[in-house]
Amino acid sequence: MAPASRLDPDMPEKIVALARTLYGDEAPEIVFHPQCFLSWGHFAGEDSARAKAFLDIANDESFDALWFARGGYGSNRIAPDVLPALKPVARNKTYLGYSDTGFLLAGLYKAGFTHVAHGPVVADLNRQGDHGMQGGEDAVARALCYMFERDPKTLEPSASATIPSAAFNMSILNNLIGTELMPDLSGHVLMLEETSEYLYSIDRMMFHITAHEPLRKLAGIRLGRCSAIPDNDPPFGQTEEEIVKHWSAVSGIPYLGRADIGHDIANKVVPFGQLPKV
Amino acid sequence: MAPASRLDPDMPEKIVALARTLYGDEAPEIVFHPQCFLSWGHFAGEDSARAKAFLDIANDESFDALWFARGGYGSNRIAPDVLPALKPVARNKTYLGYSDTGFLLAGLYKAGFTHVAHGPVVADLNRQGDHGMQGGEDAVARALCYMFERDPKTLEPSASATIPSAAFNMSILNNLIGTELMPDLSGHVLMLEETSEYLYSIDRMMFHITAHEPLRKLAGIRLGRCSAIPDNDPPFGQTEEEIVKHWSAVSGIPYLGRADIGHDIANKVVPFGQLPKV
Repeated sequence: MAPASRLDPDMPEKIVALARTLYGDEAPEIVFHPQCFLSWGHFAGEDSARAKAFLDIANDESFDALWFARGGYGSNRIAPDVLPALKPVARNKTYLGYSDTGFLLAGLYKAGFTHVAHGPVVADLNRQGDHGMQGGEDAVARALCYMFERDPKTLEPSASATIPSAAFNMSILNNLIGTELMPDLSGHVLMLEETSEYLYSIDRMMFHITAHEPLRKLAGIRLGRCSAIPDNDPPFGQTEEEIVKHWSAVSGIPYLGRADIGHDIANKVVPFGQLPKV
Repeated sequence: MAPASRLDPDMPEKIVALARTLYGDEAPEIVFHPQCFLSWGHFAGEDSARAKAFLDIANDESFDALWFARGGYGSNRIAPDVLPALKPVARNKTYLGYSDTGFLLAGLYKAGFTHVAHGPVVADLNRQGDHGMQGGEDAVARALCYMFERDPKTLEPSASATIPSAAFNMSILNNLIGTELMPDLSGHVLMLEETSEYLYSIDRMMFHITAHEPLRKLAGIRLGRCSAIPDNDPPFGQTEEEIVKHWSAVSGIPYLGRADIGHDIANKVVPFGQLPKV
């Protein structure tokens, strides 16, 4: 289902074909909720239609996973209707998405769901690789391979069975702070990525994130990729990593290095919490 | 002084000439701190230089007002050094600014300062009026007229001696939520304005602002002007006023109508708190 913006109508055919290429007769059944293709201004249908689609899948025991169609904007608008209506069966399911869907990942993780993960969405199939090369198949294959095989090679390398992790788009976490959706991330490694934001805005968001007292209890911050940064006027004078190191020093939250996540085809999977102990 | 971005070096001469035109021999003395013209990447000098300039003026009893040179970005970075270093004499001064300087207005108001106001800055002199007409003199004259005469015609019309007010740029308030700088706005009329943000971003910020539990105690919200909104793709489907009404309905915070503030030459003055009883 699509909690925010609508999905291209040609996507189901392409995704099912890719799954067939990857898994042959063993390919998992992938069901696209018709809500994905609704249109209501900016959104894939009205808030009520998007909330109903979420619940249709989450509360149906015949589905093993709810794979978000895409981000965009709007997941926050359905969270208050979705979260209180989830039934126990919804807890057994995997939820996979990133970017705007982080509003829902946050709310699910706060509610104690144990299979919540930050990673590629359906619409990443159309994402271009470096130098305009097509590469979205890699991202989608990684999502499928995580959901159906839990293959460790799909995971962000620092994801750990001892220290819990969480991952967010910076703008989304920025808009979660101080709301009911915000989970307790004490002791977590927080991975952050961003796209299409100015360096001054990244600096301002890192101020906000590191100034929020409950986040001072993080185990540390890792910086994912910040892509498509518009030109700052005047030049900002610091890179995104220098910015994160600055706010780490100001706040006392350890900076732990880079994370292999971002709005790109290399975006690795970050399960919220600790990895299962093997 | 300039707490964020640097000021054009030709501004002092133009501002002093305008004050002379308005007030003749009675014109107030306007002192530009040399820090206004420093440059350190995005900022008007390093954080330490901007913080020192703020304190040079705020803690000097010979000045009646600290008029912010301009916004841009960076006031948040000096607030933690500035606020604890303010002396009692700093409380007697008027502080006037808007946009990014809202980080400091917030912190000053939280610290109990009683002459904190949202209104035009020095750099508004270069702001264009409608249809490219020059009109920045009106904004600057309003600022001077407020600081030196407390003329009621400079005020946003709903500013009141019985119900306290506060005004912020939406993006700045968004980045204040959950930080130590955020004042208690219970019982206040909150006026919000924005510029150069997409409607989806305005919707997301209004979600964030109205979802923050302490702000549910506002007396109400008034919407200032939202200017230079980039085209939403697809069209958002709601105007900025419909967006604010939506979140007002969701949150139960009364929507009280428009406010005469914005990133423009008509930007009226909103003193934080209640107007003095006459």
